[in-house]
Amino acid sequence: MAVTAIEQRAMDRALELAARGPRGVNPQVGAVLLSPAGEVLAEGWHRGSGTAHAEVDALSKLPPGAARGATAVVTLEPCNHTGRTGPCAVALIEAGVARVVYALDDPGEVSGGGAERLRAAGVDVESGVRAAEAEALIASWLTAKRLGRPHVTVKWAQSLDGRAAADDGSSRWITGPEARADVHRRRAEADAIVVGTGTVLADDPALTARDGDALHPRQPVPVVIGARATPAHAAVHRHPHAPLFYDTRELPAVLADLHDRGHHSVFVEGGPTLASAFVAAGLADRVLAYVAPVLLGGGRLALTDIGVSRIDEARRLTVEEWVPLGADLLAVARFTDPHAPEQEGAW
Amino acid sequence: MAVTAIEQRAMDRALELAARGPRGVNPQVGAVLLSPAGEVLAEGWHRGSGTAHAEVDALSKLPPGAARGATAVVTLEPCNHTGRTGPCAVALIEAGVARVVYALDDPGEVSGGGAERLRAAGVDVESGVRAAEAEALIASWLTAKRLGRPHVTVKWAQSLDGRAAADDGSSRWITGPEARADVHRRRAEADAIVVGTGTVLADDPALTARDGDALHPRQPVPVVIGARATPAHAAVHRHPHAPLFYDTRELPAVLADLHDRGHHSVFVEGGPTLASAFVAAGLADRVLAYVAPVLLGGGRLALTDIGVSRIDEARRLTVEEWVPLGADLLAVARFTDPHAPEQEGAW
Repeated sequence: MAVTAIEQRAMDRALELAARGPRGVNPQVGAVLLSPAGEVLAEGWHRGSGTAHAEVDALSKLPPGAARGATAVVTLEPCNHTGRTGPCAVALIEAGVARVVYALDDPGEVSGGGAERLRAAGVDVESGVRAAEAEALIASWLTAKRLGRPHVTVKWAQSLDGRAAADDGSSRWITGPEARADVHRRRAEADAIVVGTGTVLADDPALTARDGDALHPRQPVPVVIGARATPAHAAVHRHPHAPLFYDTRELPAVLADLHDRGHHSVFVEGGPTLASAFVAAGLADRVLAYVAPVLLGGGRLALTDIGVSRIDEARRLTVEEWVPLGADLLAVARFTDPHAPEQEGAW
Repeated sequence: MAVTAIEQRAMDRALELAARGPRGVNPQVGAVLLSPAGEVLAEGWHRGSGTAHAEVDALSKLPPGAARGATAVVTLEPCNHTGRTGPCAVALIEAGVARVVYALDDPGEVSGGGAERLRAAGVDVESGVRAAEAEALIASWLTAKRLGRPHVTVKWAQSLDGRAAADDGSSRWITGPEARADVHRRRAEADAIVVGTGTVLADDPALTARDGDALHPRQPVPVVIGARATPAHAAVHRHPHAPLFYDTRELPAVLADLHDRGHHSVFVEGGPTLASAFVAAGLADRVLAYVAPVLLGGGRLALTDIGVSRIDEARRLTVEEWVPLGADLLAVARFTDPHAPEQEGAW
């Protein structure tokens, strides 16, 4: 049986509902229950870890028996495992739902298999409706799930000759206003923004995403890694989110904790030592290098040591895009060979 | 009186003749003498410093009196000064030439003024015919004349993070075959190719312009700067041109001597110390930076110290072109503010 226009519209609505939920450890999911005649019986969405899944949220709004023969339109395949909540597939079967239309297969090894379970119980199942939209909505969650840690973007600004600053440490500004505005836009898309204590002490960055003087509505959580203390008066303490401090050089441990907190995408903004540590450890998924048409020379390098000693160990990049930004050029790149070098992921 | 089609065709021919002459201290110039009826009486071109200028070369092929009433078609304004040869303007007047058509004004302070002198003697003068073609033919001579020294291109290949090699010195290859072929094409356009003795000792470069294994028909003269001796077995000794050795770090003196030898365009190919010295001395007119999408880290920098210590001293570039070459990107740039820093031009 094909998917009806009413079901497609219900999926659009379910996607809207899904987006109301928080980005976090769990994916954002929305659900709409339709009567056999195509009327909306109830809506639901997931409000974050430990709360009801979208399907159960919708079912909970109906009196017992009211979902009998109904169609459930859901943005993600109903789950099949018992976590802090029971399996949604079972809840739908027990409610007497006759048909389930969902957008995206659940990629989870534990949670997947819901469609199979529904079919085994005689429920009619359709999938793939608005799949691209559903995937875009939870892209960072899917990526983090695949990586087993947050997706890491390492960003730096450099002169053409690879310097992050002049010899006296001055660096405002190497790149132009277009490049700096681009950084803020991309910061706003990240869940967390990570710097080393050296950068906090040297530059006292606000670590906010700004549009001119105004704060973006969405702010990444500021994260400071390193052994040195952050001064009480540091700008990072005035960030809309409480900063996270990690007194460690074990990057995998930091990423694991950020992952547990539901941060799917991390923006590493330096300094050079921290950026190089992420690259050396094979923990950089994406590089954003803002290259200014300027020569500086000297010893303040944008990257320091990344564990390469011979040319055949060079870390090759696949540049997905060279983006002109005013006079500057942004390289958006991933590692051609993303294998982690034989190193500890330690800073 | 307008320029006739016959005169325009004669100018095309004069440009062909000019190109037969050598690039050198003097510009390449061609001349065609036409009878009043438009027949070619004689042709001439300049064969290099100390030989007859093109107009005089053409006149010399005619018996006395045969140029009376003729039209001289010349690619450059006839000169007005007595050097190793007499002024061409005077020779044309004395030969009874009635009309002179030329392409390009002579930019020389000493040699210019020929057109005025011709007009004062009652000769009909037209200029600007095929001026663009004539300018293209002697572009490097014009540039060197304006600069008072050869035009200097500083070229290097680098990783995105500004390294010229991995830490063990290995650098073959950072850039891909398209970028390396581009280097060879551009080398073939230069009059001289300059390296430091360190590069000779480290890399033993051939300093030839090659197309695959074949030599380009045109080869730059190899130039080695520095105090260390070049080994007798070095590849540079097998270059089609005898190498020039300068046991000095005074870059202006080297450029002055290359200029005196008629080398208008110089290609500086490293190593990093020499390239940085040219940049620091304000003696780099153009930068060619071949940027490979690769990260190396470590201490082998494509540029070392260029005399910049504060960000407001940064040497800003105007990138005229970003040229994609395979996976690499070439920045063709000039200095936005080409002033020489307050430094001696010493390496």
